[in-house]
Amino acid sequence: MKIYDWPTGPYPARVRIALAEKNLLSDVEFVPVNLWKGEHKKADFLAKNYSGTLPVLELGDGTCLAECTAITVYLDALVGEPTLTGRTPLEKGVIHMMTKRAEIEMLDAISVYFHNATPGLGPDVERDQNREWGLRQRDRALRGMHYLDAVLRKQPFIAGDAFSMADIAVIGGFIFAAAVKLPVPQESEALLAWYARMQERPSVRTQLAIVPPPH
Amino acid sequence: MKIYDWPTGPYPARVRIALAEKNLLSDVEFVPVNLWKGEHKKADFLAKNYSGTLPVLELGDGTCLAECTAITVYLDALVGEPTLTGRTPLEKGVIHMMTKRAEIEMLDAISVYFHNATPGLGPDVERDQNREWGLRQRDRALRGMHYLDAVLRKQPFIAGDAFSMADIAVIGGFIFAAAVKLPVPQESEALLAWYARMQERPSVRTQLAIVPPPH
Ligand SMILES: N[C@@H](CCC(=O)N[C@@H](CS)C(=O)NCC(=O)O)C(=O)O
Ligand SMILES: N[C@@H](CCC(=O)N[C@@H](CS)C(=O)NCC(=O)O)C(=O)O
Repeated sequence: MKIYDWPTGPYPARVRIALAEKNLLSDVEFVPVNLWKGEHKKADFLAKNYSGTLPVLELGDGTCLAECTAITVYLDALVGEPTLTGRTPLEKGVIHMMTKRAEIEMLDAISVYFHNATPGLGPDVERDQNREWGLRQRDRALRGMHYLDAVLRKQPFIAGDAFSMADIAVIGGFIFAAAVKLPVPQESEALLAWYARMQERPSVRTQLAIVPPPH
Repeated sequence: MKIYDWPTGPYPARVRIALAEKNLLSDVEFVPVNLWKGEHKKADFLAKNYSGTLPVLELGDGTCLAECTAITVYLDALVGEPTLTGRTPLEKGVIHMMTKRAEIEMLDAISVYFHNATPGLGPDVERDQNREWGLRQRDRALRGMHYLDAVLRKQPFIAGDAFSMADIAVIGGFIFAAAVKLPVPQESEALLAWYARMQERPSVRTQLAIVPPPH
């Protein structure tokens, strides 16, 4: 398997953590795509992923899988029991819901802020920014962090009693928040305590050794 | 099971079609939430779905599942073989990828257009529109339709050889496109032919009898 990757990117980090959890890291060749040069918006990359984002998993036969959730579902079904995406119908449903919610309300919101209300990937890539929308998404992400804090006051992991793909999505959110210097509010004690626990997991620790530490 | 619902909404339609495909419609009580009155942004609904969107599936014990993809995954795992979300790891991965892509590049883009560059749900609900962003998402959706057309020139269904959750997401896109009067480009022949075939499926036909016909 090949992964088109950018080592410090928050989304590629999600897939690296999933690979580490499934003990699959050594089966993958990582191929860097330079976001700062806009390589992900050029025709040969767009042929692999129409949406022009990383990561993309390429299989031996050339099939390309984009989208962190889709890649994680694939890896989870491929190897071992489905520990990252749930065992029962309800676990599966809740994990998918919380993953999507973590994206909408935190990770993707920070991404839109980054690309629209900060210099983002620089003037060659960010040709058409919308500062107002970017700032609104920043505020959405801050509200989202308070929401996730409230969730973690009631349960140990984002989707309930076990570590899952939804935790990994929020870890991606922390990595992006650190990169754009959007501190997680100090009063979000349960969220910060959860993140401290997450950093003790080998899969996360190894990944955070690559990207700058969030706090 | 209860579903918080808005009968003409494109997202609730996705779950109704999934329910019909799984032969589960009669197990569900539909509870309307009036979007035009902003009932989905009031505290008791937000307690069911933090993101304030429909549909939401509520189980007997009060557990709430939001997000069409999560609800579909749940229903598909609950009943019968996983005909909507795939059997093999690769089928699952591709279906999740294409569902997400259909959202990002068509359905969600039309939704953002609707809420930001048209009167949307009216002045009481749409308090903070961003017209420029809305128009950009409209253009993204039009490009997305051309992309989906190219996909369907090579294969009979959005995610390959079989009907899946990804087809349902694009059907949601057609329903939303019709509601906002954003016609699918005539030259998208494969996409339009696919949609004609979709309308022959009983699950889709029944649903389209509720919402206005797209073309
Ligand atoms: N929905 C995608 C988002 C991926 C994404 O936004 N990746 C970042 C890299 S960290 C990217 O490619 N950004 C470049 C851009 O949007 O221009 C996923 O879940 O994989
Ligand atoms: N990501 C959600 C989106 C659902 C959605 O946007 N639903 C519409 C109803 S068709 C809604 O609630 N819109 C109200 C609003 O955004 O104010 C999903 O997949 O379920």
